[in-house]
Amino acid sequence: MKKHGILIKVEGCLMNIVDIINKKRKKEILTKEEIDFVIKNYVAKEIPDYQMSALLMAITLNGMTEEETVYLTSAMLHSGKTMNLSSIPGIKVDKHSTGGVGDKTTLILAPIVAACGIPVAKMSGRGLGFTGGTIDKLESIPGFQTNLSFPEFIKNIETIGISVASGNEQLVPADKMMYALRDVTGTVESIPLIASSIMSKKLASGADAFVIDVKVGNGALMKTKEDAETLAKLMIHIGKKHQKKVVCILTNMDEPLGCAIGNSLEVEESLNVLKGNGPKDITELVIYLAIHMVRLGKNISFNEAKKEVQQVLTSGQAVQKFEEFIRMQKGDLSKIEISKNVISIKSKTSGVISKIDTEKLGEIARKLGAGRYQKDDVIDSTVGLKIFKKVGEFVVEAEELVQVFVGQKDISIEEILSCFTIQEHFVEPNPLVLETFSDL
Amino acid sequence: MKKHGILIKVEGCLMNIVDIINKKRKKEILTKEEIDFVIKNYVAKEIPDYQMSALLMAITLNGMTEEETVYLTSAMLHSGKTMNLSSIPGIKVDKHSTGGVGDKTTLILAPIVAACGIPVAKMSGRGLGFTGGTIDKLESIPGFQTNLSFPEFIKNIETIGISVASGNEQLVPADKMMYALRDVTGTVESIPLIASSIMSKKLASGADAFVIDVKVGNGALMKTKEDAETLAKLMIHIGKKHQKKVVCILTNMDEPLGCAIGNSLEVEESLNVLKGNGPKDITELVIYLAIHMVRLGKNISFNEAKKEVQQVLTSGQAVQKFEEFIRMQKGDLSKIEISKNVISIKSKTSGVISKIDTEKLGEIARKLGAGRYQKDDVIDSTVGLKIFKKVGEFVVEAEELVQVFVGQKDISIEEILSCFTIQEHFVEPNPLVLETFSDL
Repeated sequence: MKKHGILIKVEGCLMNIVDIINKKRKKEILTKEEIDFVIKNYVAKEIPDYQMSALLMAITLNGMTEEETVYLTSAMLHSGKTMNLSSIPGIKVDKHSTGGVGDKTTLILAPIVAACGIPVAKMSGRGLGFTGGTIDKLESIPGFQTNLSFPEFIKNIETIGISVASGNEQLVPADKMMYALRDVTGTVESIPLIASSIMSKKLASGADAFVIDVKVGNGALMKTKEDAETLAKLMIHIGKKHQKKVVCILTNMDEPLGCAIGNSLEVEESLNVLKGNGPKDITELVIYLAIHMVRLGKNISFNEAKKEVQQVLTSGQAVQKFEEFIRMQKGDLSKIEISKNVISIKSKTSGVISKIDTEKLGEIARKLGAGRYQKDDVIDSTVGLKIFKKVGEFVVEAEELVQVFVGQKDISIEEILSCFTIQEHFVEPNPLVLETFSDL
Repeated sequence: MKKHGILIKVEGCLMNIVDIINKKRKKEILTKEEIDFVIKNYVAKEIPDYQMSALLMAITLNGMTEEETVYLTSAMLHSGKTMNLSSIPGIKVDKHSTGGVGDKTTLILAPIVAACGIPVAKMSGRGLGFTGGTIDKLESIPGFQTNLSFPEFIKNIETIGISVASGNEQLVPADKMMYALRDVTGTVESIPLIASSIMSKKLASGADAFVIDVKVGNGALMKTKEDAETLAKLMIHIGKKHQKKVVCILTNMDEPLGCAIGNSLEVEESLNVLKGNGPKDITELVIYLAIHMVRLGKNISFNEAKKEVQQVLTSGQAVQKFEEFIRMQKGDLSKIEISKNVISIKSKTSGVISKIDTEKLGEIARKLGAGRYQKDDVIDSTVGLKIFKKVGEFVVEAEELVQVFVGQKDISIEEILSCFTIQEHFVEPNPLVLETFSDL
């Protein structure tokens, strides 16, 4: 191995990656110049993965200050292209979720806020989640096109107020490289690294304000409310330093969101929510998130925004916007395919659902083929699970608990049943929205 | 980047490197099977550098238990060949130094203990130190051969009781790979990693007992006595678990050892020590280390060993053994070359030397060409420094402080002078041997 001694003169001082790693190992604070040096040279492949992973582990264990995290986010943001949405009039509001099992909120939120007159210009990703990203979910609609050119993307927004495209692959290359490395080096669970990853991508998307759904619980990256709160405050701080408004909403992920897990199943459920027939938890959450987005986009009060959101839902404008959006990108909702091979799983006991192992259920969905293990895996959009009982609900022996929509892969009924803890006593249902943070 | 998920079934359980990194990140204790898995697959290049460096950083920051360190040492030891010295009769005693500026003890010790009748079978290395390793120092003697075959090596020991050869490159490949990686990823300063690196190499050398000189001070890896003590006790524990006797001697490295720094200069000084004309500090240290080696090799008391060591020095047997050893490996001491381009540096003030920046002096010697920056650098054996004043000694204005033997590279007189702190008050000289640890 060659001694890696890139020395680059930055504002009069020589820098070396080994010195920077040693500094962070000793829990010292890195300067803006040092952080810029690392990101610039890592993206240029001058700093090899083995030095970056050592630095990422030192950051994961020794932390970063708010200031260091702001510098890291800026350095990542400027590692590639950024979107320019200035040709679209109005305040552009983007939404992000830290991800969880059954999270199809973007599919529902986008048409609601577009129907309220807020332009929705969303570049979305595929990702390595349990059930794929928003793009994967939309692509389960036969014919749906996500690979739009930038002019097509802008034209759709000008015409119907909404467009969702893939292609955020060109934004923030530093994050792509770092995320792939973190995934295989035990450095995913670092709050400053998570915050800079999310915020660099959001800032690159070109919106003016952001509503971020921070998931907390056994199915989320943030297992505790304390960690989620730290992450939320850090992201708000990063936004402020970049002159962007950020609202963070901490929401429960101790059970799947809604009832459907799997790509086509989640599109179907999204449509039901827009029609007013969706599960209570996801309906409530989507309305709450939509109110915050409309409030930011129109600079109006919470109650005014609430009225607008309820109006587009009850009038059918939101579902019409959804159908318009799907048609505009050449999708045919009538052709959605869900596996006909359905296995019904019934409870073996009577009682109250006290706990759902959400992460394990997500892992089962991925095993069924609904998600990817590796970047090049092909998703089976027809497979998934439907949950009939949520935490706090009663179930009687032999009552249907889960339906599994099976494709090529086998399932284990015992494994699925083991995700549900059933007890005799009454259990309080999980509160959905835990707390809202903002700097407005 | 591909998701690195080598799953190997070890004693009935599946292992994955990412899980192992995560375990250490969470400060959990790794099992013997997990440590074996890591070393085996790293040497086989199944585990890439970027995962190993993340694990090494997690170990550096979160530590390892004594037990984990013993397992790591064993796994490293068994990653390659080990020497079999059983054909040589008697107890083989090997010596190691954690390294410092001006440390030529092996050159002097080896003939002393060989003259006392202890077989010296030493495989030594080149290394990336300030002034090269023992092999580099010996190779400054024109004609000296270090590239011996194993039968030649053994034959030399049978004939004259001593042989020093290069070629420990074949021993402990895991250490070679890990050391090269640690060097460029800020993970050198980890006591468990240092202990397992030293002990795996020592155990592979085939000796029965070891005397280890642990350097402490501003010119050494261990900056504090506490760290040096921890390292010493850990190495003794590792030795015990491998049924080997280990004596660790903590010695001062707050100033260079002896007066000469540089390859030919150090050979010359070694010869002076053997003839009884060497600097006091290195003479005392070598005698102390030799007594411990003879004591271990002959299983006799400290005082009996002391008599034998003094006898071979005063009788001239030690210096004769040195000359015999050099001849046997085809070196010609009369042809040693030291640069004729000598710059004399004189003190600008009068006073007492209170401090010598040893690391900086070592770095200056390396810059002169006495040491390597990269593995393939060629050493200039004729260059170096001679120090005339040590800590506690008086110097008057315009008195000679240092002689610099210059080759192709320039020097800065100011930089050399800045290594010496001179004050008005009396200063206690540095004690040389700080403490001795063993489990005998």
